[in-house]
Amino acid sequence: MTDTTHIPAGEAVSGQQRRIEEDLTYRVLASFENTPDARLKQLMQALTRHLHAFIREVRLTEEEWNTAIGFLTAAGHLTDEKRQEFILLSDVLGASMMTVAVNNQAVGDATEATVFGPFFAEDSPEIPLGGDIAHGAAGQPCWVEGTVTDTSGKPVPGARIEVWEADEDGFYDAQYADGRTAGRAHLYTDADGNYCFWGLTPTPYPIPHDGPVGKMLEAVNRSPVRASHLHFMVTAPGLRTLVTHIFVEGDPQLEIGDSVFGVKDSLIKAFVEQAPGTQTPDGRDLGNQTWARTRFDIVLAPAGT
Amino acid sequence: MTDTTHIPAGEAVSGQQRRIEEDLTYRVLASFENTPDARLKQLMQALTRHLHAFIREVRLTEEEWNTAIGFLTAAGHLTDEKRQEFILLSDVLGASMMTVAVNNQAVGDATEATVFGPFFAEDSPEIPLGGDIAHGAAGQPCWVEGTVTDTSGKPVPGARIEVWEADEDGFYDAQYADGRTAGRAHLYTDADGNYCFWGLTPTPYPIPHDGPVGKMLEAVNRSPVRASHLHFMVTAPGLRTLVTHIFVEGDPQLEIGDSVFGVKDSLIKAFVEQAPGTQTPDGRDLGNQTWARTRFDIVLAPAGT
Repeated sequence: MTDTTHIPAGEAVSGQQRRIEEDLTYRVLASFENTPDARLKQLMQALTRHLHAFIREVRLTEEEWNTAIGFLTAAGHLTDEKRQEFILLSDVLGASMMTVAVNNQAVGDATEATVFGPFFAEDSPEIPLGGDIAHGAAGQPCWVEGTVTDTSGKPVPGARIEVWEADEDGFYDAQYADGRTAGRAHLYTDADGNYCFWGLTPTPYPIPHDGPVGKMLEAVNRSPVRASHLHFMVTAPGLRTLVTHIFVEGDPQLEIGDSVFGVKDSLIKAFVEQAPGTQTPDGRDLGNQTWARTRFDIVLAPAGT
Repeated sequence: MTDTTHIPAGEAVSGQQRRIEEDLTYRVLASFENTPDARLKQLMQALTRHLHAFIREVRLTEEEWNTAIGFLTAAGHLTDEKRQEFILLSDVLGASMMTVAVNNQAVGDATEATVFGPFFAEDSPEIPLGGDIAHGAAGQPCWVEGTVTDTSGKPVPGARIEVWEADEDGFYDAQYADGRTAGRAHLYTDADGNYCFWGLTPTPYPIPHDGPVGKMLEAVNRSPVRASHLHFMVTAPGLRTLVTHIFVEGDPQLEIGDSVFGVKDSLIKAFVEQAPGTQTPDGRDLGNQTWARTRFDIVLAPAGT
């Protein structure tokens, strides 16, 4: 038992009451003592301690307990193959991001990880270096370039880079009913660890907020909107897989707050807008369109860290 | 922030990693700062602190996080008007009982409360003193008698006593499809605060255990069985409503452990078995049946305590 089972100082409970509550926690912890799997036992006992500490600290009322049961029930009933309200709940409480943090510990200057999100799809199309991931997704063209190195600074040739993003209307391809594949692709770094591709300048969009999680966000006066971002997953033999985003410097949502706490300062990049007619890096003719460019140098931690 | 956001001593995380995790918790807590309702703000911030502390303490893996999301999803899909898997989850984690404890603080020698359970029904039949609550429910007849007093020892006349229980097959009336009303009734104490009625000697039964909560109990080697009990709810003007059970001294399940942690020593009563033909307190002729008798003196706390 840790100190989380103790009533915070100043809480008006008698010694007798405190003993009753501590005895209950003790009995629930003891009920897990015969769990054959040591890890499961640790998880259930820690869950019990923290859950009990929460109820005791806030002196949860029976009405609030009922509200919590009703919230979980509504979340369960909304959840299906296309909508996962429990993941949204985990996201907006920062529990998803904390799990990412715990499983992707800081290693030297390795690029930081962030949430995976629900919109990755296997079997994205492969593009060559300098190719376009849009495949018809609407938005401002954006040139993305950088290197992949390990923490010693050595370039990583042949690293696989998966990229995916929402279109300028805020939707991923999977959110359309027409089965399109757009705004996603994979490519490989060259012999010097360099990569580059055309994507779309990211724009902000809300997480689904028409369910209990959305109602909760409204009640606590929080925005459901995610800061504009472009997803990356980078894999290479002997190196830790990196799941991350880059964010857009100057995006007002960075000030308001990303609804799932995915932002890390090191992941905010300048997306530099280019006037119509500006020469593109690969000579692509974009006619009278504006475009943007950004740079993201990726450092992979060793595998097993 | 309390000390629950700190990593337990001995956990191998670097100072840099600890700062990353603490900063995340700080940002999630800050996101609730503009909650208009002060109580909701307190609840969400405390929930965040304890949830993050749990994830950090156990170093939750991404696979375990996925298992938790899957568990909640399955619980949600099983829950309907007749089955409430989230309440069962709260029960078996002792969260229901802790909520009862927090809301029914010890006051002098007031009778202790325990879980309400899902089987109470409004509009139970009224019986006179000495009446029978069984209404056809199968089981050994049991004479129950006692007094209702306040914490100064003064008898409480006219206190309303609701009693309900499972039959000897382990089912409450609501669990039968035929709409029966059986094993439940209400009565009132007399001018001296006395009450008595015929019920059934309680027998053990399992909580519904064919869902995710039952699977969890199996994985941790815990019994789903509730210790034998008889439910009471006692109300009287100016006194705190008491929701409780009495348990059967000698029930082996008391040693094994009640699956929802409802047992308190003060609520375990001798149910004294009577040989066939033993004179009944009210002269009722039970023929060649055995019967039992027990005594439960009830002390109500003042209202508002």
